[in-house]
Amino acid sequence: MNEVSSMINVAIIGAGKIAAVHAAAIRRSPNARLTWITNRTIEKATALAGPEVKVSTDAHEAITAPDVDAVIITTITGTHIEYILAAVEAGKAVLCEKPVDLDLPRAQACLRQVEEMSGRVQIGFNRRYDPTVLELHDRIDAGEIGNLEQLTLVSRDELPPPLEYVPLSGGIFKDMMIHELDLARFFLGPITSIHAVGQNVVDPRVKALGDFDAAVAVLKAESGAVATIINDRRCVYGWDQRIEAFGSLGSLTMNNQRATSVTSSHATSTNALGRVLTNNTDRYGLAFERQIEGFIASVSTGSDLTPSIRDGVEALELAEAATLQAHADLA
Amino acid sequence: MNEVSSMINVAIIGAGKIAAVHAAAIRRSPNARLTWITNRTIEKATALAGPEVKVSTDAHEAITAPDVDAVIITTITGTHIEYILAAVEAGKAVLCEKPVDLDLPRAQACLRQVEEMSGRVQIGFNRRYDPTVLELHDRIDAGEIGNLEQLTLVSRDELPPPLEYVPLSGGIFKDMMIHELDLARFFLGPITSIHAVGQNVVDPRVKALGDFDAAVAVLKAESGAVATIINDRRCVYGWDQRIEAFGSLGSLTMNNQRATSVTSSHATSTNALGRVLTNNTDRYGLAFERQIEGFIASVSTGSDLTPSIRDGVEALELAEAATLQAHADLA
Amino acid sequence: MNEVSSMINVAIIGAGKIAAVHAAAIRRSPNARLTWITNRTIEKATALAGPEVKVSTDAHEAITAPDVDAVIITTITGTHIEYILAAVEAGKAVLCEKPVDLDLPRAQACLRQVEEMSGRVQIGFNRRYDPTVLELHDRIDAGEIGNLEQLTLVSRDELPPPLEYVPLSGGIFKDMMIHELDLARFFLGPITSIHAVGQNVVDPRVKALGDFDAAVAVLKAESGAVATIINDRRCVYGWDQRIEAFGSLGSLTMNNQRATSVTSSHATSTNALGRVLTNNTDRYGLAFERQIEGFIASVSTGSDLTPSIRDGVEALELAEAATLQAHADLA
Amino acid sequence: MNEVSSMINVAIIGAGKIAAVHAAAIRRSPNARLTWITNRTIEKATALAGPEVKVSTDAHEAITAPDVDAVIITTITGTHIEYILAAVEAGKAVLCEKPVDLDLPRAQACLRQVEEMSGRVQIGFNRRYDPTVLELHDRIDAGEIGNLEQLTLVSRDELPPPLEYVPLSGGIFKDMMIHELDLARFFLGPITSIHAVGQNVVDPRVKALGDFDAAVAVLKAESGAVATIINDRRCVYGWDQRIEAFGSLGSLTMNNQRATSVTSSHATSTNALGRVLTNNTDRYGLAFERQIEGFIASVSTGSDLTPSIRDGVEALELAEAATLQAHADLA
Repeated sequence: MNEVSSMINVAIIGAGKIAAVHAAAIRRSPNARLTWITNRTIEKATALAGPEVKVSTDAHEAITAPDVDAVIITTITGTHIEYILAAVEAGKAVLCEKPVDLDLPRAQACLRQVEEMSGRVQIGFNRRYDPTVLELHDRIDAGEIGNLEQLTLVSRDELPPPLEYVPLSGGIFKDMMIHELDLARFFLGPITSIHAVGQNVVDPRVKALGDFDAAVAVLKAESGAVATIINDRRCVYGWDQRIEAFGSLGSLTMNNQRATSVTSSHATSTNALGRVLTNNTDRYGLAFERQIEGFIASVSTGSDLTPSIRDGVEALELAEAATLQAHADLA
Repeated sequence: MNEVSSMINVAIIGAGKIAAVHAAAIRRSPNARLTWITNRTIEKATALAGPEVKVSTDAHEAITAPDVDAVIITTITGTHIEYILAAVEAGKAVLCEKPVDLDLPRAQACLRQVEEMSGRVQIGFNRRYDPTVLELHDRIDAGEIGNLEQLTLVSRDELPPPLEYVPLSGGIFKDMMIHELDLARFFLGPITSIHAVGQNVVDPRVKALGDFDAAVAVLKAESGAVATIINDRRCVYGWDQRIEAFGSLGSLTMNNQRATSVTSSHATSTNALGRVLTNNTDRYGLAFERQIEGFIASVSTGSDLTPSIRDGVEALELAEAATLQAHADLA
Repeated sequence: MNEVSSMINVAIIGAGKIAAVHAAAIRRSPNARLTWITNRTIEKATALAGPEVKVSTDAHEAITAPDVDAVIITTITGTHIEYILAAVEAGKAVLCEKPVDLDLPRAQACLRQVEEMSGRVQIGFNRRYDPTVLELHDRIDAGEIGNLEQLTLVSRDELPPPLEYVPLSGGIFKDMMIHELDLARFFLGPITSIHAVGQNVVDPRVKALGDFDAAVAVLKAESGAVATIINDRRCVYGWDQRIEAFGSLGSLTMNNQRATSVTSSHATSTNALGRVLTNNTDRYGLAFERQIEGFIASVSTGSDLTPSIRDGVEALELAEAATLQAHADLA
Repeated sequence: MNEVSSMINVAIIGAGKIAAVHAAAIRRSPNARLTWITNRTIEKATALAGPEVKVSTDAHEAITAPDVDAVIITTITGTHIEYILAAVEAGKAVLCEKPVDLDLPRAQACLRQVEEMSGRVQIGFNRRYDPTVLELHDRIDAGEIGNLEQLTLVSRDELPPPLEYVPLSGGIFKDMMIHELDLARFFLGPITSIHAVGQNVVDPRVKALGDFDAAVAVLKAESGAVATIINDRRCVYGWDQRIEAFGSLGSLTMNNQRATSVTSSHATSTNALGRVLTNNTDRYGLAFERQIEGFIASVSTGSDLTPSIRDGVEALELAEAATLQAHADLA
């Protein structure tokens, strides 16, 4: 990073929805300053930038600018590697949205190059920064449930993505399950095997496109623990986001969250909670904010960025293995 | 009691619904034998009795029979005092359904006579024997929540009683709240004051009959604790039976109960439980059974019967005070 | 108000903790601009103001300034009436923290003066703006639970206030229960009677100072509904903030809230949630924010400010009645 | 069956713990009469039989007795096939505890013989008769959650079985998971594939004996649904028995059950439930009772016995496949 100062200068590459979330987090941070926003259409960059931030249609201009210490990459997946490598070459710290790339060999090659250059690259698995996920992790680490034996991760989207996105998504394992694959590694450490099953239960057109719309995977960890991941692309009651960690001394569970704490009782049912939070920034708003705080703090102090690009590639390796296997099963 | 033996011989006076519940409990008891059932219409007595039990239309015949150690009185309220005194005079132990009588001075006079004769009379406040109520009581006694400061008792019937019962009921305080008044005494000990409020929210005909169909009361205990009782004669989600005990070190709550442990999540609500148990013998089935066990055990060992007729009269005194006050408020 | 523009200019009187919360909310508002902060010690005002806001030690300078449309009063209770009247005289809209005053006749006189001047004064009962409270209110209004019959409000502070605050607090009813008294009016409309009971269960020194540290009140509403309020100055599991609304078609409950959605199961207990949120701005952070938004929106559009100073005085009348009665009970 | 009468005469083979549960259920049944109990040690048979029931050390004497319509087999697994075939040959209806046999080819051969003789044999997968399981099944059948897509079954024993039992158990899949394998078939219909993972996390001596003490399996059903089964031999909070059925219109969950409905809140945790029921006859007491009722009713009316011996063998086939695969994985 150029000239470490107490104030980190940040460029955001891309000016979409998630870029706006990051920009707001940087604006709230006392230790960071947003200096650049780039986007193919300059108007979106300008709209997000406000008066005091430079804009460009050229990501490389911002990446190499002297008033940039850290680069946040929010552009489409196909551009991630190019910008990661450019930023690392320019000596900048990087926070890049997941996944590194949809093509595993390309992602692995990128990882090698980054490591050769001793680059500092964090991947945007923001759920590792969610207060509830972190509380689970900290309490497990503190020994509260003894030896962690079984981990169950449920993630069900409220609605399937637009059909046109499916061919670009890399498939359900790389696009959706990759979050739980990363969390499995976060909680269990090295994974030694994975078995995956794909399902087509939501929309037959997804099957026609060669993808699944639900999936289950079982992972064995070096530690002897097993993780089970359950995904579905449609969930009428909201965005189902749960984790159960079971150990020799008990269990810790991350339950779903709602906008309010109202329960209701009527003639046919009682103590009903409301719909589950469905919006990514509603459910994981604090996680996004703390991810940026963690990134800025690590850039400031020079400590390890986490989850690293290695974490990103290892999750992708699991997703690739799951994809191949689930499709082979059908053959 | 005549000739205490290891086997207690029991007569049941009355052959209605609750008599059947008691008869079944006695049949399951290894320490008791049902010897008599009496009822005005002999057929009902015979139906309940089975082959081995004597029947009569004359309660006094059973009460004074030599093969009766203990008498369970399940007849209408107006007969309670007569049978209690007859049984005590005959040296029998008594379990009598609540209330002792609707007329407080009569009930107080009965108590005095029983005590002069050193009679042993238990009143059928069966909720004191409910496993959940008892767990609350035991854990409070063990000091788990420190000093008990506030007790909240909610009891809401699923449906109002038949209109023709209202004039015979003694009013909502003596008929319905008396259970919670007894529980307030069970948990808090001596009560020093009560303030009651009556409501007419369910059926205007109840108001025309001079009764309330909902009520709230606040009781101060000698200990400094306060109990709040909330009653309603209609509850669409079932029979609302809850207690919250709050103390200096935490709280203990008796929650509602359901027939199964199913929860459901749908488009508009999540984690909903089913209807609350509505039937007295569903919700308090174990309480009825353990009440008989407790009665039989106390009769066998000669230990104090509890709750005693004194408990019955003191609950009635609170109900009377609440009744007078709630009606005076309206004047 | 001087020159209504699309942008509301706001002065904050006082620069304490709650002033900082309001200042942050105004800064987030697209429709308001913070123009003045006043405080007896100028340094606190300056610290909160930032570069672009004027500061003064003289509240009246800000209240009468031309670049002030609305005044937020956060100073100690004894100053509320003076600043309310000054702001109303100057034609400014007011948001004043509760209570209007500890002395009921003074508060009532203030109300008369404000109404004579057609002043626009909102009282800071922020809980009316809490999303969970509002959801309850909206769903009741929409008829979901039919006729509202019984309302139970539990509010227990985590820890008692400093002993030196007790003599200044106006007593538990004006200081603490006033929030629930206002909510009772919010949900039930006009109240026709109140019965209150005071308790001394936490700290004997509070009794020596002539105050209670726990209290229960029962209120009858014109509608026939009854509200029960349960307060305690100490609660080991956090800040107990619950409401149950029971009606002819069901019930709606506001449950406690926690920082995360973790539950845990161990050898002796299962499915345990974490401590309840204890901090006012944690639990009611959104309520504070939406209160300011509501105030700004009403000032902008000229619609009624709510809850109004009349609401503030009527809650105070209930608190006064409760205080007199609870103390008379002891005599 | 010999001479179908309105009253079914039942013989119980074996006089252990589960035989006592069945005997009690038959005694409560108005449609059945217990006529024989056999056991290798006659004293145990006599103790269970009471005065009116014939006893023998010879199972075949009871099986072929004219006053026996139905035979309940509760003896050790190795004897099941012999008694099943003897009873079927004698024209008696059979209820046999699970599993049919630990050896799959032997069990399959038995099934063929039973079917050739048109024998009527029910297998004691009693959980199919649990009210909570049945409610789930009925509500799914009624379409409440639309198309059933994913089923998750968690079963964790409180404590591992005695070490000496392990070599006789047939392994975790045939001994423990077989219940969930049967339930998966009950809810999902025909299973087309299974993938199983074994774990050794509880006791290293189990590994030395060639068995696992935890396991996870993923099953694909012909319908397109996937079932996930999670087993562990140790669970500090009790006997973890849960099912989640997720479908296109919502989800239905069978939660754990406790002896009482008490929750507690303390300084560090809130709303905690008590330990989960650990005893088979506590948790599934009603299931055992209704299994017998169902068996008796089917015998009386001549309707199909369910779950049938075919269900028993098909669950065993899944358990065998899981066993082979989990062990192959290790190699």
